[in-house]
Amino acid sequence: MRDPATAGYTLNQTMLRIRDPQASIRFYCDVLGFTLLHRLDFAEAKFSLYFLALLRDGETVPEDAAERLRFVFSRETTLELTHNWGTETDPDFAGYHNGNAEPRGFGHLGISVPDVAVACARFETFSVEFVKRPDDGRMKGIAFIKDPDGYWIEILSPNGMTTLLTPGG
Amino acid sequence: MRDPATAGYTLNQTMLRIRDPQASIRFYCDVLGFTLLHRLDFAEAKFSLYFLALLRDGETVPEDAAERLRFVFSRETTLELTHNWGTETDPDFAGYHNGNAEPRGFGHLGISVPDVAVACARFETFSVEFVKRPDDGRMKGIAFIKDPDGYWIEILSPNGMTTLLTPGG
Repeated sequence: MRDPATAGYTLNQTMLRIRDPQASIRFYCDVLGFTLLHRLDFAEAKFSLYFLALLRDGETVPEDAAERLRFVFSRETTLELTHNWGTETDPDFAGYHNGNAEPRGFGHLGISVPDVAVACARFETFSVEFVKRPDDGRMKGIAFIKDPDGYWIEILSPNGMTTLLTPGG
Repeated sequence: MRDPATAGYTLNQTMLRIRDPQASIRFYCDVLGFTLLHRLDFAEAKFSLYFLALLRDGETVPEDAAERLRFVFSRETTLELTHNWGTETDPDFAGYHNGNAEPRGFGHLGISVPDVAVACARFETFSVEFVKRPDDGRMKGIAFIKDPDGYWIEILSPNGMTTLLTPGG
């Protein structure tokens, strides 16, 4: 049984560091349909935070600043992208680690879409890099793409996963 | 404008690798209030996946297997924990990398709670490891705790963040 002391707890955010906010926002918004909810700049510490979400049908972002902050930090769920200023133009910056080579840890984000084949055909038109296309390997109907920093994003569909994982399905 | 081709896209999951599922499930369920939605075992490849979520008020997990899979893979949002069999008893296993030491990448999960001080006082009773307590440093009212693998989890509240980030607030 869930402890009533945890009432109202919400998995609100996943934070990833990014090299170039322009490239990341273009990718998440144009290719994947995210909306930039809010940006926070920390001039002294030289970093910015970008909060993005895949809005639900009919969901709108409050115009009022305080209401918008409350929305960003209560919503289930946002992607928080952290940009340490200067990485996007630093030729010595080695890039961020996606967690899937040693040392491993974080694996991927997963985006549920109505139709994986249709989604992936569209991603091809954006020259998105694929780790695995839907028909590659044994897990048919699941794809993995890379975001601009090389983080993996699984593309799956509720119906496809149900068929794949149901015995005899 | 959001491309209509992305209609229905949902940020469904964040995947992290874990050393010991018993320890992780105890932590996420008992301490943080998550519910284990579904477990998938892949005997040939020797790994298991655990899907967890912070259920909303009144939300229930379907009993029927196919309906439950559809729920798991359409819900916004789940935590997917990957257990490669044997790590929990392997004395040579070095553990997973939390992304906050070099090489950096993934930063943290964030859980929104009604009251950060109340939540953290309760976490202390579970001997949870803190990276930052709510009153440490300059960002008052935000805490960071560690899960059993050392992944960071930010503990924040919508009202606290709004006050902290509103000029003059």
